[in-house]
Amino acid sequence: MSSIEQVRSADVTLTVTVGGQPLAEREVTVAQRSHQFLFGCTAFELVDGLPEGDERQQRLADLWLDLFNFATLPFYWGRFEPVRGQPATERLRAAARWLVDRGCVVKGHPLAWHTVTADWLLELSNEEIAQAQVDRIRREVTDFAGLIDMWDVINEVVIMPIFDKYDNGITRICRELGRIPMVRMVFDAAREANPHATLLLNDFDMSAAYECLIEGVLEAGIRIDALGLQSHMHQGYWGEEKTLSILERFSRYGLPIHFTETTIVSGHLMPPEIVDLNDYEIDSWPTTPEGEERQADEVVRHYRTLLSHPSVEAITYWGMVDGGWLGAPGGFVRTDGTPKPAYEELHKLIKGEWWLAPTTMVTDAHGKLRVSGFPGEYDLTVGDATASFRLEAPGEAAVEVTLAPEAV
Amino acid sequence: MSSIEQVRSADVTLTVTVGGQPLAEREVTVAQRSHQFLFGCTAFELVDGLPEGDERQQRLADLWLDLFNFATLPFYWGRFEPVRGQPATERLRAAARWLVDRGCVVKGHPLAWHTVTADWLLELSNEEIAQAQVDRIRREVTDFAGLIDMWDVINEVVIMPIFDKYDNGITRICRELGRIPMVRMVFDAAREANPHATLLLNDFDMSAAYECLIEGVLEAGIRIDALGLQSHMHQGYWGEEKTLSILERFSRYGLPIHFTETTIVSGHLMPPEIVDLNDYEIDSWPTTPEGEERQADEVVRHYRTLLSHPSVEAITYWGMVDGGWLGAPGGFVRTDGTPKPAYEELHKLIKGEWWLAPTTMVTDAHGKLRVSGFPGEYDLTVGDATASFRLEAPGEAAVEVTLAPEAV
Repeated sequence: MSSIEQVRSADVTLTVTVGGQPLAEREVTVAQRSHQFLFGCTAFELVDGLPEGDERQQRLADLWLDLFNFATLPFYWGRFEPVRGQPATERLRAAARWLVDRGCVVKGHPLAWHTVTADWLLELSNEEIAQAQVDRIRREVTDFAGLIDMWDVINEVVIMPIFDKYDNGITRICRELGRIPMVRMVFDAAREANPHATLLLNDFDMSAAYECLIEGVLEAGIRIDALGLQSHMHQGYWGEEKTLSILERFSRYGLPIHFTETTIVSGHLMPPEIVDLNDYEIDSWPTTPEGEERQADEVVRHYRTLLSHPSVEAITYWGMVDGGWLGAPGGFVRTDGTPKPAYEELHKLIKGEWWLAPTTMVTDAHGKLRVSGFPGEYDLTVGDATASFRLEAPGEAAVEVTLAPEAV
Repeated sequence: MSSIEQVRSADVTLTVTVGGQPLAEREVTVAQRSHQFLFGCTAFELVDGLPEGDERQQRLADLWLDLFNFATLPFYWGRFEPVRGQPATERLRAAARWLVDRGCVVKGHPLAWHTVTADWLLELSNEEIAQAQVDRIRREVTDFAGLIDMWDVINEVVIMPIFDKYDNGITRICRELGRIPMVRMVFDAAREANPHATLLLNDFDMSAAYECLIEGVLEAGIRIDALGLQSHMHQGYWGEEKTLSILERFSRYGLPIHFTETTIVSGHLMPPEIVDLNDYEIDSWPTTPEGEERQADEVVRHYRTLLSHPSVEAITYWGMVDGGWLGAPGGFVRTDGTPKPAYEELHKLIKGEWWLAPTTMVTDAHGKLRVSGFPGEYDLTVGDATASFRLEAPGEAAVEVTLAPEAV
């Protein structure tokens, strides 16, 4: 048994009943319908390009939905509300609705960040900026409750007050307030607007700085529902040792871990001397056959490493199609719409090795049956009758499945 | 007026009186006796080698006392109490007494640190280690109160719980408790043992990690009296820009800043790829003539930069004589006991440019006189009569100096 199975597998004894009686010694088919683990990806393309009637968009949407069950939608303030008072609520709502209708969990990213924030904040006093930030959070979290119940509330707080590439309203107030009061302010606003939401703190800084921030935030009594760790690897795959060491350090807080932003390129690597990835600007960054093989191998290793750790509950890949952020060949799909090896190999895990395909089994004399699989939703079918059940958590459990009598 | 003078200069109107009457139109001599600014250095050599009867020791002591007014003494637990219950209290007390008798402020370093800590902690449970740590702090802070009223309470907390070079008791408890509860525990113990002590948090990590730690500690309501910033520059002088940027970032908390550990070498530089300075082991690291010129220049620039910032209240140089930590030529004095250019140049600042040598002036018809100088103690002499006065703080002030009538 691999460590991933040890960590992830739910091993249940199903008791199948019909009309209150055990369904003894009958062939049944069990099939997984969904993963509870959040296999995610950005879905920024959907905001302006829902695939109605567009063949290429439809093909990309099919690829997306066949691999992922969790979408990150963009709420960068500077783009969401470039003119004060004119938020892109309806456009985002259409995208979120489209995803939710297809069974996806949707997360909004981010509610507070110093990058791509609204330029018009620069006209305001710090007090007004803080009020606008709180109002913005309350508005979005309220407007999308029910569709979006998960938020990257604040992004990259470690550098927020010392970010010095350009002036912006969020750095101004974080410098004045301090990091922890800033985190408290934005989390309080989001929590109050939607008490049922899952609220994340998200950062790219995997050093002791983020640990110190987290410890300060938790000591201050601010409730964080999940820790977001970015893993953009434009400069090369981290490798298992580094990844496991990061998982060990950040799992000490007993919080769920979401790998919120993962990129692994299928072209040349960005030079190691680049500190801020945004500084790397080139005309063209092509995907290559060797790069695609390397990417596929590294993607599989990265996902296997993350799934082997029980704290990890979500992984979001940062862009399914090449040419997104930095123009990097970081996608699982080429710009011509064809899937790369990484797509195929990851599909073999998510919908293969880690997935229970329709399997025919026979119940025993008491209507019992052993099923093992990843947590998620399953169907059990006998003849024309189908009943659903859930595997809730790894480990042993007993589940009763009741079929409607008329169809068996 | 240089920025150092703007920041440091106390500009006072003295009124000199004798028997209640202004001492009008008389020649007086004003001379500085001491600096309020703490120009410090380690004095580890004194713990086992007080200069009684030893000519070389006496010469070194004279050099030390002519430049510095602030000493750091070693309280590394593993050396202070290598056998549990047998602390080196008396040896340290003798050294502290010797320094205090010569007008120095003395600081103990450190009360809690994962490096050079007591090996016997490894035999204890975490609860017992924590208790031993608290007891140790209470004992030292109580035993030395009055002689040592300033402590580096805890050292290098940023890496303390993730330090992985070897197992040690302090990393164990910091990992279990978390950084902030660890800081609270040791500060509470020190504060309780000596409510009048100046208590420092000290770190070498000048990144956002230390900022995040400080913000968490302050948000948690733990009182820190001064922030300790290390500046070991075995790999090269930081330069003004980096130093000023660090000062800007760490002065945001409104706390006094102590540069607690400064090294600038007068030999070749340690290669930049070394991450933990302790990993650099070489047979011989000589001082060189070119290196000594460079060191003198950089020492002057470093001290000028630090004195130009109003938050800095102390600078401790890490070893007056070559061959201390790492065997580095980081001293102001060669192993043969002769001072390097850095000693001479720093002396020209501390006892020259930043010092009021005996100066003859004349009081006006109202016994008044203008004096400008760094905060510290001064003597005013008329004939055989001398009175002391203090310049307390930078800026304008009025001070009355009263001479005894019989001697004037």
